[in-house]
Amino acid sequence: MKLASLKTDHPDGKLVIVSHDQANCVDAIDIATNMQFALENWSSCSEALTARYLSLNDGLEKNAVAFTGQSTFAPLPRSWQWLDGSLFLNHGHLMQQAFHLDPIADADKFPLVYQGAGDSFLGAKDNIEVADLKHGIDFEGEFGVIVDAIPMGSSAAYALSRIRLVVLLNDISYRALGPREMKTGFGFVQAKGATAFAPVALTPDELGEHWKNGRVCLPLQVKRNGQFFGEPHGQEMHFGFHELIAHVAQTRPIKAGTVFGSGTVSNADPSKGQACISELRAKEMIQHGVGQTPFMQQDEVVSMNVTDANGQSLFGSIEQHVTVSDTSEKL
Amino acid sequence: MKLASLKTDHPDGKLVIVSHDQANCVDAIDIATNMQFALENWSSCSEALTARYLSLNDGLEKNAVAFTGQSTFAPLPRSWQWLDGSLFLNHGHLMQQAFHLDPIADADKFPLVYQGAGDSFLGAKDNIEVADLKHGIDFEGEFGVIVDAIPMGSSAAYALSRIRLVVLLNDISYRALGPREMKTGFGFVQAKGATAFAPVALTPDELGEHWKNGRVCLPLQVKRNGQFFGEPHGQEMHFGFHELIAHVAQTRPIKAGTVFGSGTVSNADPSKGQACISELRAKEMIQHGVGQTPFMQQDEVVSMNVTDANGQSLFGSIEQHVTVSDTSEKL
Repeated sequence: MKLASLKTDHPDGKLVIVSHDQANCVDAIDIATNMQFALENWSSCSEALTARYLSLNDGLEKNAVAFTGQSTFAPLPRSWQWLDGSLFLNHGHLMQQAFHLDPIADADKFPLVYQGAGDSFLGAKDNIEVADLKHGIDFEGEFGVIVDAIPMGSSAAYALSRIRLVVLLNDISYRALGPREMKTGFGFVQAKGATAFAPVALTPDELGEHWKNGRVCLPLQVKRNGQFFGEPHGQEMHFGFHELIAHVAQTRPIKAGTVFGSGTVSNADPSKGQACISELRAKEMIQHGVGQTPFMQQDEVVSMNVTDANGQSLFGSIEQHVTVSDTSEKL
Repeated sequence: MKLASLKTDHPDGKLVIVSHDQANCVDAIDIATNMQFALENWSSCSEALTARYLSLNDGLEKNAVAFTGQSTFAPLPRSWQWLDGSLFLNHGHLMQQAFHLDPIADADKFPLVYQGAGDSFLGAKDNIEVADLKHGIDFEGEFGVIVDAIPMGSSAAYALSRIRLVVLLNDISYRALGPREMKTGFGFVQAKGATAFAPVALTPDELGEHWKNGRVCLPLQVKRNGQFFGEPHGQEMHFGFHELIAHVAQTRPIKAGTVFGSGTVSNADPSKGQACISELRAKEMIQHGVGQTPFMQQDEVVSMNVTDANGQSLFGSIEQHVTVSDTSEKL
């Protein structure tokens, strides 16, 4: 099943079911007021949602309308908890090599994770509105999952069974601000912008054999201003999502609607490129002693997409322009 | 004005106005569905809420009932964003001395802050339900504020004008898990439990002269099992709340209902005791080479209170027992 939230005046938007080919969508608000409600009531909602999805795919939904990713919020427009991992160890290895940092102890035993702002996610075509280009504007292509409630102390196996939706996201990062915050030990606050999501969330079954061991085993295509930037593959994720969730759930119960991110998708094979600028700069530093590729500037565009074997987009695409926030009205 | 949220089956509870002497309360749900709604619509709600508060204090509210802190959620039962600072530098200095850590660079210039879980705050009398006593169960007595919307790039002066409510809170911490997470640079996730709040939130004017420069200038009384543990004073906060807010708002807009914490209240004068166990253990380590005071054990109680010159509780008291989560039904 495919779900999305159309933009409305309400911050939670309007829940719609999207057809398998993403050509059409149909209202689902009579089944679930919004995506958060659907997640909190999955056992009672999912059957009706699935029935309508099948009927939509068969062309039997009279109220179906054309679906365009232009007018979508994030599939879950805001979340009570957003926890972003860093589960592709290749990314960390490159950063450590480039910046001559000590390796993070036990990063292969305990998933790295920080808590981000889930109060207002961005839609797939929303601008990346930044305070200052000097902050080192970067994107990070990631996979994510949205879960049902999971009690404290649950196993990874149980967590896997509670993953309801898979998403594609852009974790917007301000690289000039990250190192100072990391050194404090308190994690990223100033260094992260609002996270953007591709229009469509998928139930894991939509991925077929590409959903394996709690990982999205597909390449994530990233372009900068329409040019190839990378297509790293999800299979090199060191921990599965279920292991990240169980790690967090060790000391806290997880509410329905909590979002978990994979961290920037990163592969050891250099021909795969990369899903963030800082990783390319790290490779340049290792090779040439200096990072050459600039971070994002005004009006630049980053796009992200994941396609199936037939070249069809699975989540719809992310396509975001950078704009500098108007500071003339600063308060 | 004083506000609280009574426990109901709904996670947002029932908004009530509490009398100045905290003896009585009266429904406010005809003015604002819940606390989050009140914060999002402060300009249109606050006048009506204030009018009813004055009428309640004058004994004119026919629907008033007795107020007991027993049945309250946190004043804001859940928040889209919870950002906890560490603004009493004395605490950090002691920890660094005890553990022979390098000082955090520029901690006197940039407020330390991490993002915590706001998806389900605890009420003042809720148990501290932990996974394992070996995690080093600790409390942290803190002041906090809840704000109205604040645009990205706003000044500290503007942020000060947008502080709507002041709260008293217990930031529950698992000390055995903190150092590993700090070393990763990603901040605290496993190392923090759900934060608990005293029953009553105050508008800043309720504090009179004790609300000064974005600080709550009153002692925070902490007891462990009914015995004095500390009464550190809020005036030694190195940054005001408005400075913490402006720091965070530098790269993100702040939504109405965002909660900011001061970090554990801590004073240079040792006779003031301390608001968390780890600080006492740090003092013991500095003096005797080893921390002697154990962390919280099963059934132990921590209580926190702040009183005015007449000894009247301002926020109502926090009083929480430690219980170990039943793991027999682990999934």
